[in-house]
Amino acid sequence: MASYKLLLLPGDGIGPEVAGGMQVVLDTLKETGLATFETETDLVGGSALDAHGVPLADATLQRAKDADAILLGAVGGPKWAGVAYENRPEAGLLRLRKELDLFANLRPAICYPALAEASALKRELVEGLDIMIVRELTGGVYFGEPKEITTLEDGSKRAVDTQVYTTAEIERIAHVAFDLAGKRSGRVASAEKHNVMKSGVLWKEVVTKVHAEHYADLQLEHILADNCAMQLVRRPKQFDVLVTDNLFGDVLSDIAAMLTGSLGMLPSASLGAVDASGLRRALYEPVHGSAPDIAGQDKANPIAMIGSLAMCLRYSFGLGDAADALDGAITDALSGGARTADIAGAGANPMGTRAMATAVADAL
Amino acid sequence: MASYKLLLLPGDGIGPEVAGGMQVVLDTLKETGLATFETETDLVGGSALDAHGVPLADATLQRAKDADAILLGAVGGPKWAGVAYENRPEAGLLRLRKELDLFANLRPAICYPALAEASALKRELVEGLDIMIVRELTGGVYFGEPKEITTLEDGSKRAVDTQVYTTAEIERIAHVAFDLAGKRSGRVASAEKHNVMKSGVLWKEVVTKVHAEHYADLQLEHILADNCAMQLVRRPKQFDVLVTDNLFGDVLSDIAAMLTGSLGMLPSASLGAVDASGLRRALYEPVHGSAPDIAGQDKANPIAMIGSLAMCLRYSFGLGDAADALDGAITDALSGGARTADIAGAGANPMGTRAMATAVADAL
Ligand SMILES: CC(C)[C@H](C(=O)O)[C@@H](O)C(=O)O
Ligand SMILES: CC(C)[C@H](C(=O)O)[C@@H](O)C(=O)O
Repeated sequence: MASYKLLLLPGDGIGPEVAGGMQVVLDTLKETGLATFETETDLVGGSALDAHGVPLADATLQRAKDADAILLGAVGGPKWAGVAYENRPEAGLLRLRKELDLFANLRPAICYPALAEASALKRELVEGLDIMIVRELTGGVYFGEPKEITTLEDGSKRAVDTQVYTTAEIERIAHVAFDLAGKRSGRVASAEKHNVMKSGVLWKEVVTKVHAEHYADLQLEHILADNCAMQLVRRPKQFDVLVTDNLFGDVLSDIAAMLTGSLGMLPSASLGAVDASGLRRALYEPVHGSAPDIAGQDKANPIAMIGSLAMCLRYSFGLGDAADALDGAITDALSGGARTADIAGAGANPMGTRAMATAVADAL
Repeated sequence: MASYKLLLLPGDGIGPEVAGGMQVVLDTLKETGLATFETETDLVGGSALDAHGVPLADATLQRAKDADAILLGAVGGPKWAGVAYENRPEAGLLRLRKELDLFANLRPAICYPALAEASALKRELVEGLDIMIVRELTGGVYFGEPKEITTLEDGSKRAVDTQVYTTAEIERIAHVAFDLAGKRSGRVASAEKHNVMKSGVLWKEVVTKVHAEHYADLQLEHILADNCAMQLVRRPKQFDVLVTDNLFGDVLSDIAAMLTGSLGMLPSASLGAVDASGLRRALYEPVHGSAPDIAGQDKANPIAMIGSLAMCLRYSFGLGDAADALDGAITDALSGGARTADIAGAGANPMGTRAMATAVADAL
């Protein structure tokens, strides 16, 4: 029986609770005898800063490198609003992404039928929605240098961030998008601002080339990022796979997530390249943030975290059947009426984080 | 009687048609004896490129500098997809914004009651929506240097764009936002990504300072740009004035526009600083683009262009009453059932561009 090493990084805010909910499901998975999971737990973000003075300790980074996959809860919160830029909780997550070269961020935006009513959009526009956003995660304005604030002679300041993309960076994320599209509807939309940004010009050029040379049987559409944001609101079902850069991906994936009415339900995967032995580094985390306002109250929805575990089974361990079973258990629990507060609707009597996790585990 | 010099730049696609519609209203305004309007017409964008080999001729720029206000239709279209980067139609518009130092882009997102049903969002979420987006328009990644594509030794490429903001640039746009908020609900939200971008750190710092020193009686909220995009979809009415940088403003204002269900109805103003004689450079244009797919068919909605004229009366000439009358005429024409195809709804019999403009002129 295969054995996998998982590193759990619960993080801040509701992170520890949703990670606890996932643990319930993980225990059930272990009992099924599907695989052995060895788990270690460590700190990241504000909690790491409080304990070690940095948002990601070197020892934690080493553990992340040694693990077969990482499951992260969430980072950040108002408690750390005043800390120095290098030490903000988010820096821990960004360092993990960069050092492990997790360049491909997969963010499915799925509208669960039971929750279509919770969307701000009219039901017919979102029912059945199933978009896969492929966001470049280790390049662009997040990491480009110079990135600095300098003080001018008159005492005023000047801030600079640099958006950089190379052919190689765009090529590899394009391959991920087209490979995924090949297993889905065969349609890819690529979003940039080539009418204003040189990185957008190169992005469009490289995606066009990768398509022509390797995936001519698939459909490719180029769309300006501002128009893409509009179209996501107007008619989201026109999209299947949507590939874009780090910053546009941050915004567009959040819009897509919100459309589904299921923000607390959406998982994500951040993947590295496949190495010679067929393995790839990977980190899985909910799309939602640390939600400090409800932290510690057993209110948070653990489904995004549990869904992240399902993505881990699928993308890191090739356990597609188990992943399907887990996704099915989530759907069954929802159909059975299980609801946390975020998706309960008016008048309903919501359950807590742990009860929801148990409902999914039972359905499994 | 005051006399004003207007430069009309119809541009590309549906630009000439909607500008023609606006001309109908302008003629009616002239008849009222409110003011004298002297108009000149010139080329910008693809049409300028076709005629002069550049998307904004120097002579046109000079005319723009000499005018009291500029009214622009739209630029761009697939016809010019292959032209060199420096000559793309958008470059004409960007040069105008930059050379005239039109740093403050005001984009109202208003949901007309008669059109609430046309929104993708549920009616109760958008009915009565009235957001003023204040977008910085002459800084950030649109204009920062370096902005280039270089070829590396192995033949692959590297593209760079640079986001730059100075204290002075942020201060002046913050003042515009707070001044507007003072005449509205008194609430400003400022959107950036200070958790990832140094320009976001400076943005937040400067906006906070301007608020504390000059507008302590107004309410200021800081919001991350990705979360702002989400909140616009989830609960748009939480916002009143929203101030943000050039790139986030591009995306967020498009989302807000789409929410209203009235994209073809929304005007915008791009304003410079007020000079010693109390005058300010200004350009007014619809938020919608050049819509080449329907160009030349008398189908386009001229209301955004007519609304841009109303903003011109208000912000450039201080003719608030006339602007109110024109805005009222738009509302009346709509209440009277006037509909172009974009807002007609299924089964309705839409009118053309000119008929819609005439309906507004008649209501005036
Ligand atoms: C926490 C933050 C740094 C992060 C980002 O901007 O990438 C988050 O918004 C995300 O989308 O994962
Ligand atoms: C045409 C284009 C250059 C422009 C922009 O990106 O600013 C447009 O999208 C806008 O929002 O006015």
